[in-house]
Amino acid sequence: MPFDPASLKFDDRGLVPAIAQDEDGTVLMMAWMNADAVARTLETGRVTYWSRSRQAYWIKGETSGHVQELIDLRVDCDRDCLLLVVRQTGAACHTNRRSCFYTAVRDGEEVELMAPMT
Amino acid sequence: MPFDPASLKFDDRGLVPAIAQDEDGTVLMMAWMNADAVARTLETGRVTYWSRSRQAYWIKGETSGHVQELIDLRVDCDRDCLLLVVRQTGAACHTNRRSCFYTAVRDGEEVELMAPMT
Repeated sequence: MPFDPASLKFDDRGLVPAIAQDEDGTVLMMAWMNADAVARTLETGRVTYWSRSRQAYWIKGETSGHVQELIDLRVDCDRDCLLLVVRQTGAACHTNRRSCFYTAVRDGEEVELMAPMT
Repeated sequence: MPFDPASLKFDDRGLVPAIAQDEDGTVLMMAWMNADAVARTLETGRVTYWSRSRQAYWIKGETSGHVQELIDLRVDCDRDCLLLVVRQTGAACHTNRRSCFYTAVRDGEEVELMAPMT
């Protein structure tokens, strides 16, 4: 079946959450896409989100160089969430950590799991 | 630092997206939690979401037996998304597939990556 980005179930802002997972299995980040960001990501192979704060397309790594090359795009059963398997250059997180999920909760305490990349 | 679920950045419905990843690395599903669902998950070790459609707590697997045992809970840099590392019993998806992300988009076509579990 041909894939049509418009067939996804977008929220009332026209967005779906998109989870980026490195090809090594690490979950890197979660951001948002509209239909056109999905289409651009598929066309260019460069992961492109929609920035809710800037209300603009956000080609991941365009300024930092920390690009995400799309390896595989997956749609969930409800068609309201995407999983992007990517090849991440450098840090995915704006704090320069590899993943945005660097804080764990253990025994009620927040624990930092990884340091910024050098 | 002690973790307080109220310190998360909830959306205007009082929810954060929660990504469930099996301890083997497979991304299983994405669902939603409110502050109390986060607290219940940490207290019980059983992953508990908030069902937007039913407007009720959803102890994953309570009826199906396909429970998610919490291994680690992680918070992202913006504190508006959670990553749950879990031990999944059986299928995470209501279609009886291991993961909800069983459809890939390849060369413009939708491709089914996994069959229902038997």
